[in-house]
Amino acid sequence: MSDLTLAEKASLASGADFWSTKTTRGLPAIYLTDGPHGVRKQGDSVDHLGVAMSHPATCFPPASGLSQSWNPDLLRRIGVALGQEAKSLEVNVLLGPGINIKRHPLGGRNFEYFSEDPHLTAVLASAWVDGIQSEGVGASLKHYAANNQETDRHRISADIDPRVLREIYLRAFQRVVQDADPWTVMASYNRLNGIPVSENEFLLTQVLRHEWGFRGVVVSDWGAVDNRVEAARAGLDLEMPAAEGTDDQMLDAVMDGSLAVEVLDRIAQRMIDLAHKARTGARSAATPPDLEQHHALAQEAASQSIVLLKNEGSLLPISADRSVAVIGEAALKPRFQGGGSSFVNATRVDLPLDEIRRVAGESLVSFARGYSADPTANPEELVDGAMKAARAADVAVVFLAAPLESEGIDRPDLELPQDQVDLLLAVHATNPNTVAVLAHGGVVRLAPISVVPAILDGALLGQGVGRAIADVLYGNANPSGRLAETVPLRIEDTPAFGSFPGEHGHARYGEGLLVGYRWYDTREMDVEYPFGHGLSYTTFAYSDFVLDSNDNGIDVTITITNSGDRFGREVAQFYVSLPGSEVLRPKRELKGFVSLELEPGESQTITTRLHREDLAYWDTRSDRWILEGGTYLVAAGASSRDLRAIEAVEVEGDYVHVELTMHSTIGELLANPITAPAIESALTAAFGAVDNAAVGGNVVQMIAPSPLNSVVGLLGDSFDADDFTRLLDSANSSAIAVAG
Amino acid sequence: MSDLTLAEKASLASGADFWSTKTTRGLPAIYLTDGPHGVRKQGDSVDHLGVAMSHPATCFPPASGLSQSWNPDLLRRIGVALGQEAKSLEVNVLLGPGINIKRHPLGGRNFEYFSEDPHLTAVLASAWVDGIQSEGVGASLKHYAANNQETDRHRISADIDPRVLREIYLRAFQRVVQDADPWTVMASYNRLNGIPVSENEFLLTQVLRHEWGFRGVVVSDWGAVDNRVEAARAGLDLEMPAAEGTDDQMLDAVMDGSLAVEVLDRIAQRMIDLAHKARTGARSAATPPDLEQHHALAQEAASQSIVLLKNEGSLLPISADRSVAVIGEAALKPRFQGGGSSFVNATRVDLPLDEIRRVAGESLVSFARGYSADPTANPEELVDGAMKAARAADVAVVFLAAPLESEGIDRPDLELPQDQVDLLLAVHATNPNTVAVLAHGGVVRLAPISVVPAILDGALLGQGVGRAIADVLYGNANPSGRLAETVPLRIEDTPAFGSFPGEHGHARYGEGLLVGYRWYDTREMDVEYPFGHGLSYTTFAYSDFVLDSNDNGIDVTITITNSGDRFGREVAQFYVSLPGSEVLRPKRELKGFVSLELEPGESQTITTRLHREDLAYWDTRSDRWILEGGTYLVAAGASSRDLRAIEAVEVEGDYVHVELTMHSTIGELLANPITAPAIESALTAAFGAVDNAAVGGNVVQMIAPSPLNSVVGLLGDSFDADDFTRLLDSANSSAIAVAG
Repeated sequence: MSDLTLAEKASLASGADFWSTKTTRGLPAIYLTDGPHGVRKQGDSVDHLGVAMSHPATCFPPASGLSQSWNPDLLRRIGVALGQEAKSLEVNVLLGPGINIKRHPLGGRNFEYFSEDPHLTAVLASAWVDGIQSEGVGASLKHYAANNQETDRHRISADIDPRVLREIYLRAFQRVVQDADPWTVMASYNRLNGIPVSENEFLLTQVLRHEWGFRGVVVSDWGAVDNRVEAARAGLDLEMPAAEGTDDQMLDAVMDGSLAVEVLDRIAQRMIDLAHKARTGARSAATPPDLEQHHALAQEAASQSIVLLKNEGSLLPISADRSVAVIGEAALKPRFQGGGSSFVNATRVDLPLDEIRRVAGESLVSFARGYSADPTANPEELVDGAMKAARAADVAVVFLAAPLESEGIDRPDLELPQDQVDLLLAVHATNPNTVAVLAHGGVVRLAPISVVPAILDGALLGQGVGRAIADVLYGNANPSGRLAETVPLRIEDTPAFGSFPGEHGHARYGEGLLVGYRWYDTREMDVEYPFGHGLSYTTFAYSDFVLDSNDNGIDVTITITNSGDRFGREVAQFYVSLPGSEVLRPKRELKGFVSLELEPGESQTITTRLHREDLAYWDTRSDRWILEGGTYLVAAGASSRDLRAIEAVEVEGDYVHVELTMHSTIGELLANPITAPAIESALTAAFGAVDNAAVGGNVVQMIAPSPLNSVVGLLGDSFDADDFTRLLDSANSSAIAVAG
Repeated sequence: MSDLTLAEKASLASGADFWSTKTTRGLPAIYLTDGPHGVRKQGDSVDHLGVAMSHPATCFPPASGLSQSWNPDLLRRIGVALGQEAKSLEVNVLLGPGINIKRHPLGGRNFEYFSEDPHLTAVLASAWVDGIQSEGVGASLKHYAANNQETDRHRISADIDPRVLREIYLRAFQRVVQDADPWTVMASYNRLNGIPVSENEFLLTQVLRHEWGFRGVVVSDWGAVDNRVEAARAGLDLEMPAAEGTDDQMLDAVMDGSLAVEVLDRIAQRMIDLAHKARTGARSAATPPDLEQHHALAQEAASQSIVLLKNEGSLLPISADRSVAVIGEAALKPRFQGGGSSFVNATRVDLPLDEIRRVAGESLVSFARGYSADPTANPEELVDGAMKAARAADVAVVFLAAPLESEGIDRPDLELPQDQVDLLLAVHATNPNTVAVLAHGGVVRLAPISVVPAILDGALLGQGVGRAIADVLYGNANPSGRLAETVPLRIEDTPAFGSFPGEHGHARYGEGLLVGYRWYDTREMDVEYPFGHGLSYTTFAYSDFVLDSNDNGIDVTITITNSGDRFGREVAQFYVSLPGSEVLRPKRELKGFVSLELEPGESQTITTRLHREDLAYWDTRSDRWILEGGTYLVAAGASSRDLRAIEAVEVEGDYVHVELTMHSTIGELLANPITAPAIESALTAAFGAVDNAAVGGNVVQMIAPSPLNSVVGLLGDSFDADDFTRLLDSANSSAIAVAG
């Protein structure tokens, strides 16, 4: 480091080409490439645009599917597998996970993100990062931060209030940085409260490094840097991809004194550290990726990610002796990922139709395309064929796929293609034993198909899609996924409706804390399916719910029993609320969950901790996390609206000292035991004789919001300014103060 | 003016006592006092607290009632009457009207404000100001601005985005300042976007004076000024009430150079101008107030302000031969105003019970108290008496009154008192011919009483309350009021639910433009009663709806026919929308209305103008009002949800020049006819050969949101930087540019 010239240091600060850093003075180049649900490494026809066909790699479920597993252990194993594949392709950093919160269901990149909930996001993403980095390959936590839409994504300012920013949009980043120590964090394209993230010292240095202790490299999103010197000053280390002249701009700035040399030193040191990690990782004992095993893992992941939304009359699983009509082109050409930088060239793909035939036997399975992307196909013939197949079968399984979702474009609506919906309804009218199987990235409106008795939500399932669906349909696997995002009844019900995606460069996050289920539950709105929802072929009973409040938070113990007759997995969710809180709060918030597998009749007693830091709110008076003391309610549930047990527990709060001043209100002074008596007597002296009827109400109540300094003249007859000063001093020096 | 010493100038800048300015150098003191729905002038026992019993004065309906008339002519006449009373009491400025927008139904002072809609507010308040000032008494437009809650009202910062501020919270102020030229504007207690309004140069000078051309005096709300020098610098002229030492603070600041002497000069000149206006007004020919006539006007105003919410089976009007049980203590002790500074010592009050007996005859009217504020009353006996009376009568009329609302305190909920609701339901169960008559300031939840077949909404009606209700009940008057505020189904449905009243000094107006019906209509939510709703004992037909687009806006012509058999008043409302607008817009917005009276069978063809300036939106790119060109839809309706006719009209838009730069996106450059061909060919050269399958989507679509400078490296093979510069210059110098 100390040997490097200034120019060499600067050279470390940007890419050599689209994917690699420079090999300055023998330091190895670091190869970063797209992911995150598979390794998208450019193949032999590497181009300067980053869009050539990539090497084959295992395509695991994208985050919108994988998150439905609610299973951090699964994510850790996938992280390990991705690390093995990356290492074998000489990739040092895989650009993921993407952990932005799904603010609005039309976000075009929601399919790459986990959830509308920061806690679920954080736990799953931490496991993924743990997994990949255990193989010596770095993660890149992205897109930091508040990159929640594609419309005008390079310029839009996410305008977010401090508490909302901390509790919703930064929370998962904080948790993953602190819990899993990712090698790199990627600075997003957008602005935050008017300041480009790439040049945002608050985000990149104050919060990320000083508050959270991040010690890795901040890398730009590709092409995000506008002003290289400002970006460096703010804390952006590595500009990607290769850029013309920006190393020199930094050098010039150092020369002319406008950029401290320490900034370049810092960048260089971090890049050297990253290069060492990369070299060490690349040299570490490598398990050559077993692509067969990875495919099996992809199948398992897909299976755990499927959510059984409804199953009236136990239509599912399909018993082996029933004839089945498989309908829909998506059974043959499944949608299992989205478009853009995350697109993986899958090693193979399990087609649903093939797998259903494999599981059920050829003879019992018919197929009709039903609809087609092929413009030469005759829609009427396709529908006729589907109706015929449906009529002839015991059960119809209709595959529906939402339109392609791609990075760079927000979705126009929540709708499934109308021709597919029409087909499904026609099939259902013909054969009431109809199952819908859905493929989509962002959430879709399901009211149009609510008549169908059984719906399997496949989200995006990666290359194991077909096998997973077949296994769940026939009960070889018991569905166990849970929604990581509320399914609303209509777009008009969504929190950011009417404000997304903003205009003229600004998107105001006006719904505040009330994102996702926090909105629907607080406003007590009907939804199609609530957050956390997912059925099983077996049933689970909750019992012996016990809370223990201690210095670390609340330890939650509960016994879960598989009360049905099949092996299954349950995801017990723990939601917290604080009735009568001094601050605005969502109705309930997820603060813990446990995934556990149970044999029929088996019981397990599990304990999990709701950490103090997760129970805190962001206090804007003191700019820090504060745990408010009080009687918390903790609910154990199978979704945010299927609460099986609720208990109350006392939690000791953090102390917040709020200074009393001449700007404190009469109400605040009356609430403080030290100041109250004097204020009461001053009020009595001043207003005691007032006829409240003259103002039609209680004068003291009316004056309560007035600051002391605005009414001191009125109270002054019996009290002088020195008296007030002494009184406030006395209150401020006492241990009694307003608690958060 | 030029004779005044600096100290004399400073002395003009604050009050002499609670209500008067100083009599510097023979300038007359100006007497300002509370209103606005009556003159609250302190009586003989004047005190230094401003809360002694005031002189008797006519108590007109408070704004929450009066606004339901939707009748600017009525408001002008009330303004004149108030001016006469004020003048006779030697009051120079009446502190009103209060025109804050009802952001949230729990706002404790909503009863003093007009509406959730700025257009309705502006038209009504302008008429009121016109009226009072025509009598030589000044208005004080308050509370400027964004003073929409009582909780922490002296410190809370209303955090509002620029477009929302302009279109919702400042719009009525702008209209009234520009249309009615109020003598004074009152600066509110709160902060706006963190800056105390009293010290807010943006509000008090830039917007109010430079943009809107206000030339009167800015007076502080009583006790609002914290830093007198900052306030003066920002544009606050008169600090009220008397304050200790603040004149000297300004003098000191001038002496030490921290305050420009011109600031004091400006304040003094404005105060001199106001004193001259006041003297001229006080000397002008005065009509001694005829309090009998004013009472009759108060009765008329109350009558026009009553909204017939529902009238199933034409239960109303009550025919003269039916026996009636009047039930509820509020029939004897009506609520007709709220508490606080606006509280008027009414000259007399028409009691509903008395007036019903007068209209219907003693023999046909029984009375039962039903409930009582008297703690010694026996609730069971009261209910029993009510049931007995209801059983014995043909019709039961039950008076319900919401809890007292007062300045200084936000309401805890939307509920009517439970004992009153229970009573009403019990009475209704006994006698289905039950009419509910409501008294309340802020809106109340009506779902609990929705079973009752007829509901009269009396809001707050002033001292003519009893007569007006009796006349409407018996058909001597035909109800013609319209809701100026949506009645939601539940508090959880309201726009600011979960964020009102903010916390720790900040209230984020996150619902943005979607206030009141703009929220419910845009989100297509069910409501109890929509904005603008009100029934009549006759019916009105709408026909011959014609729009004429011209340089001044849209002239709207429509024929309204009284198609029933009674004289009545109709309020025709005109709502505007622009489908496909380039900016976010509410579903529809009120831009005009006409109140007209029609004999049975009579038709009138009316024309009104929807002004260009009212059709514009606030453009944050150019910081000005922009009329977007396009095909507007104008609906004529009897409420925001009872649209009787809709027509489309082309409107020519304002020109907005948006410079194309290196930060313009590929999408924007493709949308511009000058730049599109070159960008297309550059894209073809760069990406033409790209296999879109490699990224699972359309590469050009994905790159559309990227700014030119972030992709110029990718396009550079076929295009150099100079080419781009020339191209942008050419586009910017052409007349074709993005229109707003």
